[in-house]
Amino acid sequence: MGRLLGIDIGGTKVAWALADRSGSVEARGRRPLDPSGDGEQDLDRIVADVEGLLERAGVATDTIDAIGVSAPSPQDPDAGLVLGPPNLPGWAQVAVRARLGAAFGRPVFLENDANAAALAEWRFGAGRGRSDLVYLTMSTGVGAGIIAGGRLVQGRAGGAGEVGHAPVEHPGEPCACGLRGCLEAYVGGAAWTKRLRRTAPATGRVAALAGGSQAITPVHVVAAAQEGDAFACAELERFNEYLARALVGLVFTLAPEVIVLGTIASAAGERLCFAPLREKVRQRAWERLARDLEIVPAALGEQTADLAGVCVALHGLVGDGGGAS
Amino acid sequence: MGRLLGIDIGGTKVAWALADRSGSVEARGRRPLDPSGDGEQDLDRIVADVEGLLERAGVATDTIDAIGVSAPSPQDPDAGLVLGPPNLPGWAQVAVRARLGAAFGRPVFLENDANAAALAEWRFGAGRGRSDLVYLTMSTGVGAGIIAGGRLVQGRAGGAGEVGHAPVEHPGEPCACGLRGCLEAYVGGAAWTKRLRRTAPATGRVAALAGGSQAITPVHVVAAAQEGDAFACAELERFNEYLARALVGLVFTLAPEVIVLGTIASAAGERLCFAPLREKVRQRAWERLARDLEIVPAALGEQTADLAGVCVALHGLVGDGGGAS
Repeated sequence: MGRLLGIDIGGTKVAWALADRSGSVEARGRRPLDPSGDGEQDLDRIVADVEGLLERAGVATDTIDAIGVSAPSPQDPDAGLVLGPPNLPGWAQVAVRARLGAAFGRPVFLENDANAAALAEWRFGAGRGRSDLVYLTMSTGVGAGIIAGGRLVQGRAGGAGEVGHAPVEHPGEPCACGLRGCLEAYVGGAAWTKRLRRTAPATGRVAALAGGSQAITPVHVVAAAQEGDAFACAELERFNEYLARALVGLVFTLAPEVIVLGTIASAAGERLCFAPLREKVRQRAWERLARDLEIVPAALGEQTADLAGVCVALHGLVGDGGGAS
Repeated sequence: MGRLLGIDIGGTKVAWALADRSGSVEARGRRPLDPSGDGEQDLDRIVADVEGLLERAGVATDTIDAIGVSAPSPQDPDAGLVLGPPNLPGWAQVAVRARLGAAFGRPVFLENDANAAALAEWRFGAGRGRSDLVYLTMSTGVGAGIIAGGRLVQGRAGGAGEVGHAPVEHPGEPCACGLRGCLEAYVGGAAWTKRLRRTAPATGRVAALAGGSQAITPVHVVAAAQEGDAFACAELERFNEYLARALVGLVFTLAPEVIVLGTIASAAGERLCFAPLREKVRQRAWERLARDLEIVPAALGEQTADLAGVCVALHGLVGDGGGAS
């Protein structure tokens, strides 16, 4: 068994790591992405980063079993292309699989970031040992990675897991995607931040913690709610309510063993988010589906950047999804 | 390759069939279920039915590769038990797999009826050749069978696919299951029938077609809507609206290639159901997910009873789901 090389391309940073199949990281690197506006050029720089890593670590490419890449949606998974994610300017159509395959001569697997993080939480994090898991990214936007029966659910053209746009209100508030009532319009970091800056009392605790209404982010709401601020607590109740609606839909559809929640929910923590959320789901889902369901924070934190790409490589090698270059 | 034996246990009838892997049926039988109130006794009678079939067809059990059973939920798929479906009185805990395994000495696979019908539509019906399919039963209740990446999504303890209870309104109308706002409370045959008998104008076209308000069923609404009756058309619009909400959630979650709709939707047909439904879904789902999505009626009709169990057997043999006795 050789090594796995993981590359995590985010909107603001890029990370790369060499690991074995147990997730033990042998060498790593990361830097701000600093997009040039030319995706090909950004990718060339990532190739150079990885070449540098391999050289410093004294690792020959033929000891690498596979390369896994985590990058934002949308993608063409069959062709191995990244197709213009909103947070990667200049990446309108970048042939990630072909370019990395040519540079390193190893099989390359590409997945969207939510799927890659779900694979990482499943293999090495909060979902270890389970067969049925839903992972929700909860940062600027909301996306999901779904593991069903021990396999990643990819959907047609890799389109599955866009749970952030499943409707939770009818017709509901406008979403940045152009639709209405999407989960992301209520619990996505960008949408929530916009709302908070508009609705938080100018002289209230949330604005004070942020140093002004226009600097408010969900972090300040969580901090104010921890102090018992009424506005902040009502905002978290609203966050939990909409999130619960989406989770109930997922529970009835997929019957997962564990639902893993990322950034914002993790930051809000047990008392402000997970405990009330579990209670809402228990009230609105059948006992046989809710009884043993775990709803837990993501466990990997910063390690996700190292392991997401590695897990994409591992999934590509052992699973039936993705395709080799 | 030997034969497959399929058994379809419904709330009102039982069917059994011998087929090959291409779905070609060699011998079949069916009769009203006529439940005795004792599930073990009902199952003994089914064993006798199948023994009669094999004898008349001159088929030895050792030429049968596997037995597949379709039966209502809930079940314990690991233990091969049917666990008290509401429409099977006396079936509180019936060891279907063990009993049939003992009777015929062949591997037995058990699935719930929605999953079994989904497998049948996928192998031989409207979803043939696809990898990602959602099938919705739409009769008294609403259930789903989900195929993702060419595999049945079963969920923890076989609990996946209860899409009839995913919320489509908040808090919404009471559902027979005890929750509120479930899809089934709006589009399930039992709930819709109850509503129609309460709300249809006593002197209107729907009541006239039914021969009285208390005899109204969705069939009469479909017939009246075909004549342009305003009440009936509004009811179908409502049916399509709630169904669309659920389908949009499924599209964003699973990115299916095809959504196959059963009984009531099939009966309502292209103009009253499928065309307006497709339009609603297209308006509320991203173009890249909705563009090539097919929303179509189930293709097998009465054949489902022959093929559902056969497909459960086939899936058990070739897939990774289910378990052998």
